[in-house]
Amino acid sequence: MVGGTVQGNPDTAVSTFAKIEEAGPDALTFLANPKYTHYIYETHAGIVLVSNDFAPEHPVSATLIRVADPYETLSRLMELVAQALTPVPTGIEQPSFIAEGVEVPEDAYIGAFAYIGQGARLGRGVKIHPQAYVGPGVTIGEGTIIYPGAKIYHGCRIGRNCIIHAGAVIGADGFGFAPTADGSYHKIPQIGIVEIADDVEIGANTTVDRATMGATRIARGVKLDNLIQAAHNTEIGADTVIAAQTGIAGSTKVGANCMIGGQVGFAGHIRVGDRVMIGAQSGIPGNLPDGSRVMGYPAVPERDFKRQSVYIKHLAELFDRVSKLEKK
Amino acid sequence: MVGGTVQGNPDTAVSTFAKIEEAGPDALTFLANPKYTHYIYETHAGIVLVSNDFAPEHPVSATLIRVADPYETLSRLMELVAQALTPVPTGIEQPSFIAEGVEVPEDAYIGAFAYIGQGARLGRGVKIHPQAYVGPGVTIGEGTIIYPGAKIYHGCRIGRNCIIHAGAVIGADGFGFAPTADGSYHKIPQIGIVEIADDVEIGANTTVDRATMGATRIARGVKLDNLIQAAHNTEIGADTVIAAQTGIAGSTKVGANCMIGGQVGFAGHIRVGDRVMIGAQSGIPGNLPDGSRVMGYPAVPERDFKRQSVYIKHLAELFDRVSKLEKK
Amino acid sequence: MVGGTVQGNPDTAVSTFAKIEEAGPDALTFLANPKYTHYIYETHAGIVLVSNDFAPEHPVSATLIRVADPYETLSRLMELVAQALTPVPTGIEQPSFIAEGVEVPEDAYIGAFAYIGQGARLGRGVKIHPQAYVGPGVTIGEGTIIYPGAKIYHGCRIGRNCIIHAGAVIGADGFGFAPTADGSYHKIPQIGIVEIADDVEIGANTTVDRATMGATRIARGVKLDNLIQAAHNTEIGADTVIAAQTGIAGSTKVGANCMIGGQVGFAGHIRVGDRVMIGAQSGIPGNLPDGSRVMGYPAVPERDFKRQSVYIKHLAELFDRVSKLEKK
Repeated sequence: MVGGTVQGNPDTAVSTFAKIEEAGPDALTFLANPKYTHYIYETHAGIVLVSNDFAPEHPVSATLIRVADPYETLSRLMELVAQALTPVPTGIEQPSFIAEGVEVPEDAYIGAFAYIGQGARLGRGVKIHPQAYVGPGVTIGEGTIIYPGAKIYHGCRIGRNCIIHAGAVIGADGFGFAPTADGSYHKIPQIGIVEIADDVEIGANTTVDRATMGATRIARGVKLDNLIQAAHNTEIGADTVIAAQTGIAGSTKVGANCMIGGQVGFAGHIRVGDRVMIGAQSGIPGNLPDGSRVMGYPAVPERDFKRQSVYIKHLAELFDRVSKLEKK
Repeated sequence: MVGGTVQGNPDTAVSTFAKIEEAGPDALTFLANPKYTHYIYETHAGIVLVSNDFAPEHPVSATLIRVADPYETLSRLMELVAQALTPVPTGIEQPSFIAEGVEVPEDAYIGAFAYIGQGARLGRGVKIHPQAYVGPGVTIGEGTIIYPGAKIYHGCRIGRNCIIHAGAVIGADGFGFAPTADGSYHKIPQIGIVEIADDVEIGANTTVDRATMGATRIARGVKLDNLIQAAHNTEIGADTVIAAQTGIAGSTKVGANCMIGGQVGFAGHIRVGDRVMIGAQSGIPGNLPDGSRVMGYPAVPERDFKRQSVYIKHLAELFDRVSKLEKK
Repeated sequence: MVGGTVQGNPDTAVSTFAKIEEAGPDALTFLANPKYTHYIYETHAGIVLVSNDFAPEHPVSATLIRVADPYETLSRLMELVAQALTPVPTGIEQPSFIAEGVEVPEDAYIGAFAYIGQGARLGRGVKIHPQAYVGPGVTIGEGTIIYPGAKIYHGCRIGRNCIIHAGAVIGADGFGFAPTADGSYHKIPQIGIVEIADDVEIGANTTVDRATMGATRIARGVKLDNLIQAAHNTEIGADTVIAAQTGIAGSTKVGANCMIGGQVGFAGHIRVGDRVMIGAQSGIPGNLPDGSRVMGYPAVPERDFKRQSVYIKHLAELFDRVSKLEKK
C-alpha cells in the first residue's frame, strides 16, 4: 500500500497516528526531521515510517517501514483515515437562504443559516457550511469548501477545489481614501473584485480585499495561513505559501513559489520575484528579485541579517574598544 | 461634469475604468503618482485624467482630460458607476431576528439571519447585512452599513454613515485581569462601551474592545483598515487613518489627522499627538508630540531610522576598522 | 462589604464608576498605578479606593476607602454591578439549529441562528450566542459562554467557565502542506483537535488551529487577547496571558504563568519555559528557559535590548569617532 520495506515484526498492528515522542504501541508514527532522530530509540510506537536511508545507531524496538518520503507517506495514510472519519455533509439544511434562481447542484451541501445571493453560481460538490455568506453574483468552483461563517462579497470568483476557512473575508472594500481640503477623507469606491484560482487554501479570519478596479488575484495553489491581510489589487503567484499574520499592502505583486514567514509586512506597489524566501517578521520596503532570501526590518539578505544581529550584540564592547583607543 | 479641459479627440468614448498599465481603448484611467508617468507614453487607454500642470515629454496617444486632482476626479466618476452597479438591498429578508419592540425604519435593509437585540435603535436607511449581530441596546446611526457577519456587542453606539465590514467585532470585552495570590487571574468586568462617531469605516475582522468603564472612542471620520486591534479605553482622533494589522494597547490615545502604517504596535497608556505619521511595523513605546514623523522598533524620528539602517549595514566594516586601529 | 477603612465623609454616595481623571462627584474610582497618583489631588470623584499604605502629600477632597488591593476591590464591586446590568439570556431562540439527539440543558441559552452539530455535548448553563457554530462532536463545558459568531470546528473540546469571544475560530485546519515534485503542495490532513481547559478566555477573532494529530492544547486559566494565532499542535501552559496579535508557530510549547506582549512572533518547534516575560513585538527564534525576560527582534534579555537601542542611537557618533582616530 505504501510501497515500503518492513524491518522488524511484520505482524505489528496499529490503530492510530501519533507524534514520535507521544506514540504508544497502538500508534504509527514517522521520522522525517533529523532533529527528532533521538526519539526513535525511546519511542513506544508500534510502527515508525523512516526514510530508505535511515541507519539506526542504537537498537530500535518499533517495527520500521522504510519509504522514500516518510512524511508524504504518512500524509497519504492520514488522508485515507481522514476520509473515513470526517462526516461528509450533503443536502440543504433548513433554514438557509438561497436567492431565487440560484441553482444548487445535487451533490452540494448548503448548511443552515448559509446565505446564497442572487445570481451566485455554485459548482458541483461545493460545500457551503453553516452561516457562510456567498454574495450576489459570486462564483464558487467545483469541489470548493466554504467553512462556517466565511464571507464572500458580491461578484468575487473562487476557483475549483479551494478551501476557505471560517471567518475569512473575501472581497471587502480596499482601503482607499482621497484626502479632501478640510483634512477629512473621501472614500474611493472599490468597484473591482477578488479572483481566486483553483486549489487555493485561505486560512481562518484572513482578509483579501477587492480591487479598486480590476481584480485582486490569488493564483493557483496558493496557501494562505490565518489572519493574513492581502490588500486591494495585490497579486500572489502560483504555489506561494504565506504564514500567519503577514500583511501585503495595496497593489504589491508577490511572485510564484515563494515561501513567506509569519508577521511579514510588504510595502505597497512593490514587486517580489519568484522563489523568494522571507523570514518571519521581516519588513519588505521595496522590490525583490527572483530567488531572494531575506530577513529583517528592513529586510536584508539572510546572511547579512544574522551577521548584523551578532554585531549588534557586541556593540557595547565596540564602544569600549573605541573609548580605549581614544584614551591612548 | 468633471470641470476639466480636453486635449486630444473630444469624441473618445469609454465604458470602463482601468489602471494605466492595463487599460485598453475602452477604458478611462488616470495619472496621479509621478512614479507612473512613464506609462502614459505607452498606455492604450482611451482617456487619461491628468493634472492641470502635466507637461508631456513625449507624444501621448490617449485623449487627456486636465483636472485639478485626477485621483479625486476619478473617485467621483467611480462613485457614480458604483452607485449604478452595486445592488442596493432593501426590506427585511426572512428569516431574521428582530427583538420585540425594535422599530425598523421603512427604508432599512435587514438581511437574512441578521440579529437585532432588544432595545436596539436603528437609524433611517441603515443596511444590516445577512448574519450581522446588533446586540441589545445598540444604536446604529442613519445611513450606516453593517456588512455580513459583523458583530456589535450590547450597548455600543455607532454613528451615522459609518461602514463596518464583515467580521469586525465591536465591543468585545477588554483584556483586563487582576492577578490573584495563586498565580491565576481574575476577570475585571468590562462594563463600558464602544462609541463610534459619524463617517467612520472599520475594516474586515478588525476588533475594537469595549471600555473597562466609560467608552472606547473612535472619532468622526476615522478609517481603520482590516485586522486592527483597538484595546479597551483607547481613543482615536478625528480623520486619523490606520493601516492593517496595527495594534493599540489599552487606554492609549491617538490624536487627530494621523497617518499610521500597517503592523504598528502602540504601548498602553500613552498619548500620541495630532498629525503624527508612523511608518509600518514601528513600535511606539511612549508619548509622541503633535506632528511627529517616526519609524522603527523602538520608533525614532524617520530620518534617524534611515540613518541607523545604513550604519547597521556598515557595522562589519566598523568592527574591522577598529581592529585595524587596535593593531596599530 | 469591601473590608476597607473610610477616611473623609462616610456618607458620600456614588452611582457609577469612572477613571480617576474623568470621575465626577457621583463616581467611585481607584488609585493603583503610582503613575496616576497626581490625579488624586485634582479628582472630583466622590470616593477613591486607595491602598492601605497610601500617604497623601497634599489635601484630597474625595472620600478615601483604604483597602489591601484597590484594583481587586474595584473589580469585585464592578462585578456586582455587571451582574445586575448585563442581561442574562436563557432559553432557545428561534430559529436555531440543534442536530437531532443533542441534549440542551434546561438553563442553557441557544441564540437565534446558532448551529449545534450532531453529537455535540453541552454542559449546564452554557450560553451559545446567536450565529455561533458548535460543530459535530464538540464538547462545551459547564458555564462556558460562546459569543456571537464564534466557530468551533468538529471534535474540539472546550472546558468549563470559558469565554470564547465573537469571531474566534477554534479548530480550523493546521497549516500543513507537503511539497510535491512539481512545486505545488499537497495538503496534510489535520486529524487532531483543539483541547481548551477550564477558565480560559479567548479574544475576538483569535484563531487556534486543530492539531495535525493529537491536540493543540490551551491549559487552565490561559487568557488570549484578540487576533492571536495559535498554530497546530501548539501548547500554552496554565495561567499564561498573551496580548493581541501575537502568533505562535506550529508545535511550539509555551510554559505556565508567562506574560507575553502583543505582536510577538514565536518560531515553530520551540519550547518556552514557565514564568517567561516577553516584550511587545519581539521575535522568539529559539527555546527560552524558565523565568526569562526578553525583548527585541531577535529577542535578547530585556536589559540588553535597552542597551542595544541606546548604542544604536549613538552609532553615528561612533562612526565619527573612529574616523577621527583613523585620521590621527
